[in-house]
Amino acid sequence: MSTMRALQVSKPNGPLELVQREIPTPGPRWVRVKVEACGVCHSDAFTRSGGYPGLVLPRVPGHEIAGRIDAVGAEVTAWKVGDRVGVGWHGGHCFECDSCRRGLFINCVKAKVTGISHDGGYAEYAVVPSESVARIPEELSAVDAGPLLCAGVTTYNSLRNSGARPGATVAVQGIGGLGHLAIQYAARMGFRTVAISRGADKAALARELGAHEYIDTAAVDAAEGLQKLGGADLVLATAPSSAAMEGTVGGLKPRGKLLIVAAAFEPLKVSAMGLLSGKTIAGWPSGSAIDSEDTMAFSALTNVRPRVETYKLEQAEAAFASMMEGRARFRAVLVP
Amino acid sequence: MSTMRALQVSKPNGPLELVQREIPTPGPRWVRVKVEACGVCHSDAFTRSGGYPGLVLPRVPGHEIAGRIDAVGAEVTAWKVGDRVGVGWHGGHCFECDSCRRGLFINCVKAKVTGISHDGGYAEYAVVPSESVARIPEELSAVDAGPLLCAGVTTYNSLRNSGARPGATVAVQGIGGLGHLAIQYAARMGFRTVAISRGADKAALARELGAHEYIDTAAVDAAEGLQKLGGADLVLATAPSSAAMEGTVGGLKPRGKLLIVAAAFEPLKVSAMGLLSGKTIAGWPSGSAIDSEDTMAFSALTNVRPRVETYKLEQAEAAFASMMEGRARFRAVLVP
Amino acid sequence: MSTMRALQVSKPNGPLELVQREIPTPGPRWVRVKVEACGVCHSDAFTRSGGYPGLVLPRVPGHEIAGRIDAVGAEVTAWKVGDRVGVGWHGGHCFECDSCRRGLFINCVKAKVTGISHDGGYAEYAVVPSESVARIPEELSAVDAGPLLCAGVTTYNSLRNSGARPGATVAVQGIGGLGHLAIQYAARMGFRTVAISRGADKAALARELGAHEYIDTAAVDAAEGLQKLGGADLVLATAPSSAAMEGTVGGLKPRGKLLIVAAAFEPLKVSAMGLLSGKTIAGWPSGSAIDSEDTMAFSALTNVRPRVETYKLEQAEAAFASMMEGRARFRAVLVP
Amino acid sequence: MSTMRALQVSKPNGPLELVQREIPTPGPRWVRVKVEACGVCHSDAFTRSGGYPGLVLPRVPGHEIAGRIDAVGAEVTAWKVGDRVGVGWHGGHCFECDSCRRGLFINCVKAKVTGISHDGGYAEYAVVPSESVARIPEELSAVDAGPLLCAGVTTYNSLRNSGARPGATVAVQGIGGLGHLAIQYAARMGFRTVAISRGADKAALARELGAHEYIDTAAVDAAEGLQKLGGADLVLATAPSSAAMEGTVGGLKPRGKLLIVAAAFEPLKVSAMGLLSGKTIAGWPSGSAIDSEDTMAFSALTNVRPRVETYKLEQAEAAFASMMEGRARFRAVLVP
Repeated sequence: MSTMRALQVSKPNGPLELVQREIPTPGPRWVRVKVEACGVCHSDAFTRSGGYPGLVLPRVPGHEIAGRIDAVGAEVTAWKVGDRVGVGWHGGHCFECDSCRRGLFINCVKAKVTGISHDGGYAEYAVVPSESVARIPEELSAVDAGPLLCAGVTTYNSLRNSGARPGATVAVQGIGGLGHLAIQYAARMGFRTVAISRGADKAALARELGAHEYIDTAAVDAAEGLQKLGGADLVLATAPSSAAMEGTVGGLKPRGKLLIVAAAFEPLKVSAMGLLSGKTIAGWPSGSAIDSEDTMAFSALTNVRPRVETYKLEQAEAAFASMMEGRARFRAVLVP
Repeated sequence: MSTMRALQVSKPNGPLELVQREIPTPGPRWVRVKVEACGVCHSDAFTRSGGYPGLVLPRVPGHEIAGRIDAVGAEVTAWKVGDRVGVGWHGGHCFECDSCRRGLFINCVKAKVTGISHDGGYAEYAVVPSESVARIPEELSAVDAGPLLCAGVTTYNSLRNSGARPGATVAVQGIGGLGHLAIQYAARMGFRTVAISRGADKAALARELGAHEYIDTAAVDAAEGLQKLGGADLVLATAPSSAAMEGTVGGLKPRGKLLIVAAAFEPLKVSAMGLLSGKTIAGWPSGSAIDSEDTMAFSALTNVRPRVETYKLEQAEAAFASMMEGRARFRAVLVP
Repeated sequence: MSTMRALQVSKPNGPLELVQREIPTPGPRWVRVKVEACGVCHSDAFTRSGGYPGLVLPRVPGHEIAGRIDAVGAEVTAWKVGDRVGVGWHGGHCFECDSCRRGLFINCVKAKVTGISHDGGYAEYAVVPSESVARIPEELSAVDAGPLLCAGVTTYNSLRNSGARPGATVAVQGIGGLGHLAIQYAARMGFRTVAISRGADKAALARELGAHEYIDTAAVDAAEGLQKLGGADLVLATAPSSAAMEGTVGGLKPRGKLLIVAAAFEPLKVSAMGLLSGKTIAGWPSGSAIDSEDTMAFSALTNVRPRVETYKLEQAEAAFASMMEGRARFRAVLVP
Repeated sequence: MSTMRALQVSKPNGPLELVQREIPTPGPRWVRVKVEACGVCHSDAFTRSGGYPGLVLPRVPGHEIAGRIDAVGAEVTAWKVGDRVGVGWHGGHCFECDSCRRGLFINCVKAKVTGISHDGGYAEYAVVPSESVARIPEELSAVDAGPLLCAGVTTYNSLRNSGARPGATVAVQGIGGLGHLAIQYAARMGFRTVAISRGADKAALARELGAHEYIDTAAVDAAEGLQKLGGADLVLATAPSSAAMEGTVGGLKPRGKLLIVAAAFEPLKVSAMGLLSGKTIAGWPSGSAIDSEDTMAFSALTNVRPRVETYKLEQAEAAFASMMEGRARFRAVLVP
């Protein structure tokens, strides 16, 4: 019987254990992916801390998977062995609940999460529901594709559905795993793109990624900086800090929107009164497999790429720490 | 020279003084309205407390004016003496700022507010910019029309622009001056209408106004009550309490929206994480004169009427207290 | 072995043959419905004429089915025997094509059509894909529910997705199977509802259904009639006549929309120049099973009912003729 | 008294007469622009043919004006002498009709048209309503700005309001004055941009402008070509040919849209049946002054420029012929 190497979490806040496991076999309508790369996302901490609803340990984290179809279960007609594919956060849906029947798969009441509901991509192989699989275009390497399956689709999909029109002033708060992609996307969508971060040293990087303007919050309040630029039509909050998010609301135009894609745990405090000019605060739930395909197609078309640090499986703790401590430039990727 | 009776506030938090004043003459592009009724709105407290930006005392409050054009200034071609008209919160705009050039008059950077920027309707006559004037249809009496110019347009306009589709579950939080109109509008727009208030005694009233469901927050948490009904697509917050608003967010469907039209001063605290399913919190800025016309036309078409208590000018303090203390059933209206 | 009575078409333009057939057994993910009522729709002519893509004769027409689940195939978890359900035009989808993955099931490249891809409801039993099944609320009889599964959902769903806001002027062109429902829906959605038909005798009916205005095209051109009312924000074309559709374009407001839900075969001729004020002409593709559920829920909530003529299976030719000749008042329904 | 040189049309289909005229003085709320460049647009033919509603000859054509404010009338506060400004097709509005009160100035019932309602830019000076004036950013020369005031804003504004999301497949039909700008805009808005024209020789040009794909209608039917690319989400029709427009409808995706910005006079013939998948055909009415400002800001931000041929006033007939015969590469501009 064949085995594979995998990193698993077997107790809350426990280490990433490198273990040998049996290579799993896909059941009906599931497929097996031979993992070529897997991004390390902040949300992997949900697996590690052990508290996510529905999570049972031990579990293999990882939901930014890129690789090739290696085996298909019964009744799979959409995929065949050898297809280059990726798998993201959204790990499958029931097709039967009202959300699914409305086509809002991401809001499925039984939505599966890759690396939480079932084992993810910190391993040589991953077995996943066929509906969670996205085709990777030729132009993208596996290492480039991985981060697009979560950091990419989350920012691309939120921006394209934000209602902001080309030419609008769009600010990206945070220049990390999500933010460094969001800036690239925003610029290529024809937005007047403003990057917001801390430190004068990031200005050059922001412009290199495509930002037209940079606000250094060490030097100026985010709201004030935005108002100097005429106000933002949209702020995309990619850094998981409620305080940082709140600080941008005052920088919105009267009908502007703060769109949140990062998981911040402290309560967000905003003035209800301050919203009455027509402002909006909203969250956005990443995307489904075809949204990831659209993300990758757009990235190939307009030449958006993540900047990554690659790690071997045995270096997973270093990769994870780099991400958690905000040191990653800008996404850590495991290469089995 | 002719004089009129008017109620003015001459110092912060001072009384409503009933005074004799010269009847003012409209300048170019302004008109004079002979007031037949003027609703008493919670926002009139802004005039009374003296702190609103741009307010100079003494000032006559009142922005729910219904009456007839009595005189027109130079260059006024859209209105003539005798026209039945109303005037609401939005008291005029500059036509030149970027918001105005985009047609977003309500967001004019120099927006005037009736009863704050210039004298309002707690008087026998009011002189106002011609662009702040709305035509009143035959079907509505002056006393009925008054409250539609602010409480009406605010709720009607927010609901019709909310994006909620007919058949959606729409909850109205609060059954006061705004809420009792919002329930009527929501039901006539084909929404499954849920009223939220405190006390079992309001259930019958809510249903009489058109609500299909009633949630008594003395008996059940608002969020829980909404979730029992399947969750809300939209909550319209009409009561000026941040705590009450916050309490409804958990009752939204995954893509649901909390739409705020009441001025609440305490910070609104919400979970950023909790928005990630695609929820939205937004404010809505009432409407302009033609929005008021649409409101009144809809009210006439579908038979929506405010429920009012009428007061004479000399009873203004009683009317104001009735409104401020939440005793009004459901709108106090001054009849000069 | 049990048999059932069914009406089948066995050659192009052949008769509706009343035959005995074996009661079919549902395969995996299909269900069997015991038919209590089945509306007769103009689109059933597609089955009868024999030319619809993918149609193989003999075939049982009928896609306005109301009844109860009678048997379920393997892997069906959403439905159980005894559930009151309906089945409409949209007869199932592949879940795998790009349209399906985007949630646009109605645009599935392999979309099945009830009564064309597989046998429909002109029979005592119908076996259909489980995803094509919609729950019927208690408040609706089977005879009332039937026509809502196609005529109902087509008009309700097109209206709620049209972008027209409450208070907008919405004209319904045609008062037949679709039109008499559309008028009811439009009025209950808070639209200022205009009915357009031929003959002064229909004015009373139109108002009874909820129309606020009636345009008799025998007396006045549709476009002219609409302009006299201030122009239409939306015209919903329910009568299968391109000439009648064209005649309404001139009655639209500058940003108005002609929304087509009827199958007209002659080319539609419009002035491209005439659209430049911002007018739109669009078609709308009925709806999926949950759209039908929404339709029925709305009908129950706001008291919309079809007006029907009922026929036994052996009277099917009379029912069909009544529909094809436009004599039905307003929907013919077969009751097995 | 000072005079200026101007080109006027004094009889229907008459020549462009180069005459000396008194330099006009702006009245209240009008301004005078010293013309530095004026594009020659296909719609100038409306002035020349003499038949446009409200046109009185003699008239100076020209509505792609770029220059500087030279004098301001009474009550003008938004502009001052020396401001760099442009003037487009939309020549002013009444501020009082319902369209204006809704902010839809372009649909004003008394909308003025530059070069038709009053004299335009084929002259050394033009006097125009102050609300028709748009600020020109530093980055753009007068010759570059001129064509953006009509060809530019028409294509930019229609694209940004089309509802197409970044990554969508957007086809531009025609590569002329409008089309060559539309291709540039579409590419910079992040659309997968397809150019459609006649002749293999235009492929290189199309790609140079930013198109990702080119369809040569001499070699393949437009609809077929689009379907080979997966279908279009949007076709922007910029060439004034109904036949060419019709030919693209079959190339739309099920929910795709044909958006028309060119004035075609023959009736457009489309299959009503063919729209039922959810297709849309719509027209778009250019834009107002602030839309032109947005257009120019976007052009400066993303480096979009028209390609022009410049002509002196005395060469106007040659410029006009170049445009009318479709020879211009790609916009003829008069430089007084």
